Amino acid sequence: MAHVIDIVDPGDPRVADFRDLNSADRRPDLPGGKGLVVAEGVVVVQRMLASRFQPFALLGVGRRFDQLAPDLAGVDIPYYRVGAEVMAEIVGFHLNRGVLAAACRPPELLPEEILQTARTVAVLEGVNDHENIGSIFRNAAGLGADAVLFGDRCADPLYRRAVRVSMGHVLRVPFASLPTWPDGLHTLRELGFRIIALTPNPAAVNLATAMTGDRVALLLGAEGPGLTEAAMRATDIRARIPMTPGTDSLNVATAAAMAFYERVRTS
Amino acid sequence: MAHVIDIVDPGDPRVADFRDLNSADRRPDLPGGKGLVVAEGVVVVQRMLASRFQPFALLGVGRRFDQLAPDLAGVDIPYYRVGAEVMAEIVGFHLNRGVLAAACRPPELLPEEILQTARTVAVLEGVNDHENIGSIFRNAAGLGADAVLFGDRCADPLYRRAVRVSMGHVLRVPFASLPTWPDGLHTLRELGFRIIALTPNPAAVNLATAMTGDRVALLLGAEGPGLTEAAMRATDIRARIPMTPGTDSLNVATAAAMAFYERVRTS
Repeated sequence: MAHVIDIVDPGDPRVADFRDLNSADRRPDLPGGKGLVVAEGVVVVQRMLASRFQPFALLGVGRRFDQLAPDLAGVDIPYYRVGAEVMAEIVGFHLNRGVLAAACRPPELLPEEILQTARTVAVLEGVNDHENIGSIFRNAAGLGADAVLFGDRCADPLYRRAVRVSMGHVLRVPFASLPTWPDGLHTLRELGFRIIALTPNPAAVNLATAMTGDRVALLLGAEGPGLTEAAMRATDIRARIPMTPGTDSLNVATAAAMAFYERVRTS
Repeated sequence: MAHVIDIVDPGDPRVADFRDLNSADRRPDLPGGKGLVVAEGVVVVQRMLASRFQPFALLGVGRRFDQLAPDLAGVDIPYYRVGAEVMAEIVGFHLNRGVLAAACRPPELLPEEILQTARTVAVLEGVNDHENIGSIFRNAAGLGADAVLFGDRCADPLYRRAVRVSMGHVLRVPFASLPTWPDGLHTLRELGFRIIALTPNPAAVNLATAMTGDRVALLLGAEGPGLTEAAMRATDIRARIPMTPGTDSLNVATAAAMAFYERVRTS
């Protein structure tokens, strides 16, 4: 069982890893960043506890400990119990979710590991917005996509906002980075994945027509620039979501959801 | 042609309607709110100019005027031209889109007006988040939904953030409020709409199965609480997006996009 330690002094060194969260959760390669993975709120903390991101400590108010007690039964880590005011002083702002858990970054998984049993994967290029990354993982979890692969220039999926927007699903849906881009896509092809590029280009085939095959990789770029031509060329087919002429491309997480949905619908 | 008026003093009374935007765009019934409709950025201003929300003035830097010149050709309103610093002082923060347009609220449209030729409409209950409202309009425009109807307890679609997130499509996709809820749904039924409630309930039929009929109204509730039972009872069928067990419901704008997509796919 997690053991409760009451903290009354916001300066207590035992809660240093939760201090000034807006910088503590930065990537290890950024100034002041410890690269910790931080879960916020009961549901996300529960998902962290059930993931390979095992927390080393929790900080939260008493009520949240009570709610989490069943999940913390077999977990031998400290629960730093605080009042709401002390909590705000430690993390640097008012956090109304009332509980945080912190984990170190485990080694990244390899593409080959996460692709073994996957049937539907998203592959991202240039998706550099944490909310979009989080939403893509949330949609992947909800709509049965098995994994996310990162190509070039993507935002960190373990940044706190991405973890929060994903509702903790970045901790559950496996992800990995392709070592080279776009050449790394050959790994997918060798494993029998059909690689489908999503594009708003009206000349592309309809998504529903393109979505065939036992294993499918859906390649998505940032809204605005979209996929690079180099990435497009490395795919098997270009597919479009049927859209009203004269409107903008869809948000990338929305486009991903529609592709996942089309996949669920047809398989 | 819009006429350029150079403004060098941030206190100039002619730009009062753009002052302190964070309160000026509030609804008329809120403290300090003028209820103006404000468009930000070239693309959204272009959409406002092509909408029934005709702006009475613009405020922006010189470069944005040049970009908008073709759109402003037949428009006899002032363009208050400012430097970036003066603009920031007027609106109260740095606005890097560089141009704003302000319009008064025209009278609301009536459900009967916007439903005349509509084939696919979204009906919202309790969607009280401006970003979700904006995203729903963006997705409606992109995926060919014809109108949005507001039931009970929805956020103001003309709030600045909703306008921005919608990319200006709240100004283009017609919307109206149902006068009573959920009884007002009878208007839709009388016009031959099949009313489909979206729910995560696994006992509901599949969305693809439910999506039949020449005219369809898709009823969506806020994520979390979802639709009220009273609203559910007023519909013809309950439909669900096929989801992975144990995950959360989808974001309401994402669910709307999927329903619009299913509709485009099948009609």
